[in-house]
Amino acid sequence: MRSSNFLLSTLKETPADAEIVSHQLMLRAGMISKLAAGIYTWMPLGLRVLRKVEKIVREEMDAAGAQEVLMPATQPAELWEESGRWGKFGPLLLSFTDRHDRSFCFGPTHEEVITDMVRRNVRSYRQLPASFYQIQTKFRDETRPRFGVMRAREFLMKDAYSFHLDDESLAATYERMRQAYCAIFDRTGLTYRMVEADSGAIGGAASHEFHVLADSGEDAIAYSDASDYAANVEKATTQLVTAEPAVATEAMQRVATPGQHSVEEVAKFLKLPLQQVLKTLLVKGTDTPVVAILLRADHELNEVKVEKLEQVASPFEFANDAEIKAAAGCGAGSIGPLGLDVPIVADHAALAMANFACGANSDGEHLSGVNWSRDLPLVNGQDVRNVVAGDPSPDGEGILSIVRGIEVGHIFQLGDTYSRAMNATCLDENGKDRVLTMGCYGIGVSRVVAAAIEQHWDDRGILWPQALAPFDVAIVPINLQRSEQVREVAEKLYAELTAAGLDVLFDDRKERPGVMFADMDLIGIPQRLVIGERGLAEGNVEYKLRSADQSEDIALAEAVAKVTEQLSK
Amino acid sequence: MRSSNFLLSTLKETPADAEIVSHQLMLRAGMISKLAAGIYTWMPLGLRVLRKVEKIVREEMDAAGAQEVLMPATQPAELWEESGRWGKFGPLLLSFTDRHDRSFCFGPTHEEVITDMVRRNVRSYRQLPASFYQIQTKFRDETRPRFGVMRAREFLMKDAYSFHLDDESLAATYERMRQAYCAIFDRTGLTYRMVEADSGAIGGAASHEFHVLADSGEDAIAYSDASDYAANVEKATTQLVTAEPAVATEAMQRVATPGQHSVEEVAKFLKLPLQQVLKTLLVKGTDTPVVAILLRADHELNEVKVEKLEQVASPFEFANDAEIKAAAGCGAGSIGPLGLDVPIVADHAALAMANFACGANSDGEHLSGVNWSRDLPLVNGQDVRNVVAGDPSPDGEGILSIVRGIEVGHIFQLGDTYSRAMNATCLDENGKDRVLTMGCYGIGVSRVVAAAIEQHWDDRGILWPQALAPFDVAIVPINLQRSEQVREVAEKLYAELTAAGLDVLFDDRKERPGVMFADMDLIGIPQRLVIGERGLAEGNVEYKLRSADQSEDIALAEAVAKVTEQLSK
Repeated sequence: MRSSNFLLSTLKETPADAEIVSHQLMLRAGMISKLAAGIYTWMPLGLRVLRKVEKIVREEMDAAGAQEVLMPATQPAELWEESGRWGKFGPLLLSFTDRHDRSFCFGPTHEEVITDMVRRNVRSYRQLPASFYQIQTKFRDETRPRFGVMRAREFLMKDAYSFHLDDESLAATYERMRQAYCAIFDRTGLTYRMVEADSGAIGGAASHEFHVLADSGEDAIAYSDASDYAANVEKATTQLVTAEPAVATEAMQRVATPGQHSVEEVAKFLKLPLQQVLKTLLVKGTDTPVVAILLRADHELNEVKVEKLEQVASPFEFANDAEIKAAAGCGAGSIGPLGLDVPIVADHAALAMANFACGANSDGEHLSGVNWSRDLPLVNGQDVRNVVAGDPSPDGEGILSIVRGIEVGHIFQLGDTYSRAMNATCLDENGKDRVLTMGCYGIGVSRVVAAAIEQHWDDRGILWPQALAPFDVAIVPINLQRSEQVREVAEKLYAELTAAGLDVLFDDRKERPGVMFADMDLIGIPQRLVIGERGLAEGNVEYKLRSADQSEDIALAEAVAKVTEQLSK
Repeated sequence: MRSSNFLLSTLKETPADAEIVSHQLMLRAGMISKLAAGIYTWMPLGLRVLRKVEKIVREEMDAAGAQEVLMPATQPAELWEESGRWGKFGPLLLSFTDRHDRSFCFGPTHEEVITDMVRRNVRSYRQLPASFYQIQTKFRDETRPRFGVMRAREFLMKDAYSFHLDDESLAATYERMRQAYCAIFDRTGLTYRMVEADSGAIGGAASHEFHVLADSGEDAIAYSDASDYAANVEKATTQLVTAEPAVATEAMQRVATPGQHSVEEVAKFLKLPLQQVLKTLLVKGTDTPVVAILLRADHELNEVKVEKLEQVASPFEFANDAEIKAAAGCGAGSIGPLGLDVPIVADHAALAMANFACGANSDGEHLSGVNWSRDLPLVNGQDVRNVVAGDPSPDGEGILSIVRGIEVGHIFQLGDTYSRAMNATCLDENGKDRVLTMGCYGIGVSRVVAAAIEQHWDDRGILWPQALAPFDVAIVPINLQRSEQVREVAEKLYAELTAAGLDVLFDDRKERPGVMFADMDLIGIPQRLVIGERGLAEGNVEYKLRSADQSEDIALAEAVAKVTEQLSK
């Protein structure tokens, strides 16, 4: 491609409203152009990268035996009423009516549509298992779309769905998809981690997320330093603490803590480390108005875990001020477990504390030097908090570390949630009608592009991994318009590299070398050949890897081999 | 592809609500599955064909120097307000509001979006001319969607837009696009015609349509039997009639025509051929309440042509009964030009009539034996009707015939309609800001699939042209499950043909041969190899072209060569 016929629309300045580096660089490189909040046009440069992701995804999905389909963006409300999601999906669902006043939505996902397609077209067990996928435009009406294509409203997704007569078949396809996902992310050249996920509202059994690791990631992932264990912090479990509580060495006493409400304030006031303060939270209960949750003050409550406890109301909700007053006789800042007549749930780590401080159930007062057994009855420990770095790995091997990740893929064993609601059945070997069981498998195709940048950039711009680069190599001629020799050599190299099957960007614009270098660095082409008269006088061209600090002179005759060799690495 | 892992969902019966053959066959072959009125899922078989069309379109667009982009489906109302189309586009535009009550539409076309992208990103004349295209999902909220994907609401389109500093550059790109369109439709293997089109509401200068010829086509195309002239009948011009009016041989007389209103009724009542009756139509005028249009009764008024006349009001509208009564003193069935005090427009062919009948401006009365000059003043002739078969070609060469066509492509020279309204300008060589001029170029990608079927089918199913076939060849084994020999040969042929780069469908389902043959015929695979023990005993397999009546026995050793040879034809 000659840049004279390719829209390079680079910016020197970082756009003010772009908060994260991938958003900034995609705008500066001219990969995308904003149309409205969370809605972007993919310009020629950006689309080349998007297509490279698409191609990898498509090839691995095909190899995994999934059949490509293309489902509509507009979906009738009736189907969503059948599955029970029309009223439930909430304002993320962009809904509208057509000219005949029939309700539709711009599909944010396609479980209903594919289940409808399958119940209409799959008639026999012989056609199962069957997996279908599409690479298609979706819409989620985010309240506050931001971060460019990372959290856009309109986005490109690969969604796949598998259908089975039984759970064994689902598990086998799920494993095949898991492997396909690993193959896909391996091929992108990105550093990623597959983690156990909480399947949350979607329901079903097994569920794994695929995260591209990057400091800017919105998700926290806990992983063991000694095993393959990795999980979203929301899902990661804390190992049971088997050690006996530490020994009581202090006497319990009531202390005045006027105006100290948060655990941080109390710890500071009492000159204690946060780990020595017990946090008591009241949440709504199933059979009692409230339930008390006890945590070490430096730990964070995990609402998903708490909600699963029998005595805690679902959906999870904190007690309000009136309920706190009624149960503890004080405000939220002074609650404590001693003398509190409500069910008590204590985190494992809270039970390992000794000589700790906690609320005294009296405003402006706390207790210090508190110890289990001696001052309050020991209870069974529960896992009700988010893991932290340094926790033992739940598989017993090693210690957990926490990294940030960007979720780019998610696979679920859905089970029969949709197929049962929509009566998607099939005749089995014995001629009996069976409700199908389903899996679903998503990849945020447009998000992968942004995630790749979050992981690969420097102060000059993007550093594409080879597999995703919009072009494999850039040819930058010096004085193309004036030097016949430079033109001849550049044209010849362009022809040879193109003939070798490479994506070549020939920068034939009438620009100063510095501008061309800066642009090629900004858009992140992995390799660069600079053709100038000075080098040619010695039979050389200048070769530089985008990731290298220095360029090197190489023989013109070896240039094509050098570039293709690098590509085969 | 093995059919055991490919959803073949064929139907024996023709679905009741499918009116045209492509819609029937696409449903019967399991290419598409209906989701809602005018909204379809492309199933695996259909998508393979759609992708073949896409690939041809993409390759030729790339070759023509157009740059691929991907614009959003959702478009903000503000842009359409800038171009002035938000209020004008009418109910075809599917509009809605997001969660923040901002107005958007599901894009039926992308002039506004691309013009916005260009005004933001193209800064210098050096970046021009520039052409951009996308293959993207669009929505038009048709009142009565029908004919399957032929007139669907959600559909796939290739739309391209070019931007220029001047009209010469636009004309050059327009010509390049015209050639690219010819290359595209040549490659599909369809019989098509490029015709002059009326650019209608979109405005601008030159405009051509590309039609796939088929009896079921919604458009009528007039073409010369002696030249390259071809035009949509709405646009085709009738040649000036230079012959003198025929000689008057009858006396004019007033005749009673009680209860005869339509020209057909009057002709029948007066025992005259329709060509001998003059039709007088009253339409709204610019400076007068009405204008009279005179036509030979067997000719059809062309509203687009009439609307362009200075004395006729735009938009075109027929006079209502009260206006007719006021102008002619009678009902619509008895209007005539004699004594009518309104501006008169006569079609060329009407001026060539002699001894004709026409209304007498008195209910239940007509005049017969009327002649120009003698009975009413001769006026200048105009072209205000649709051409008919037998009309002379307007280029002076040959006679017009009329065929039916399906519009699959349309190219326009848009001019500066959008760029001026949206202030899309660029600095020229002299540093002066110039409003850009634009072209636009569309292909109904999903419609091409249906049009191909309308042109290529028989009573057994679809007859794909080679370039669009979902598979190049089908392997149908007889008794695959029982004969080790058949399995071995079929697997070997499948491997060899696949290795040769062909798209092969290996029908390994446990079905009776008759079912497999019928399915392969229905889905229209161009070549078929049948492998059976009887043939193999003599070293033969059965070869059949989908388009041939008979199969032939060929040597197994020659099968691969036979198939690849046919493909290279």
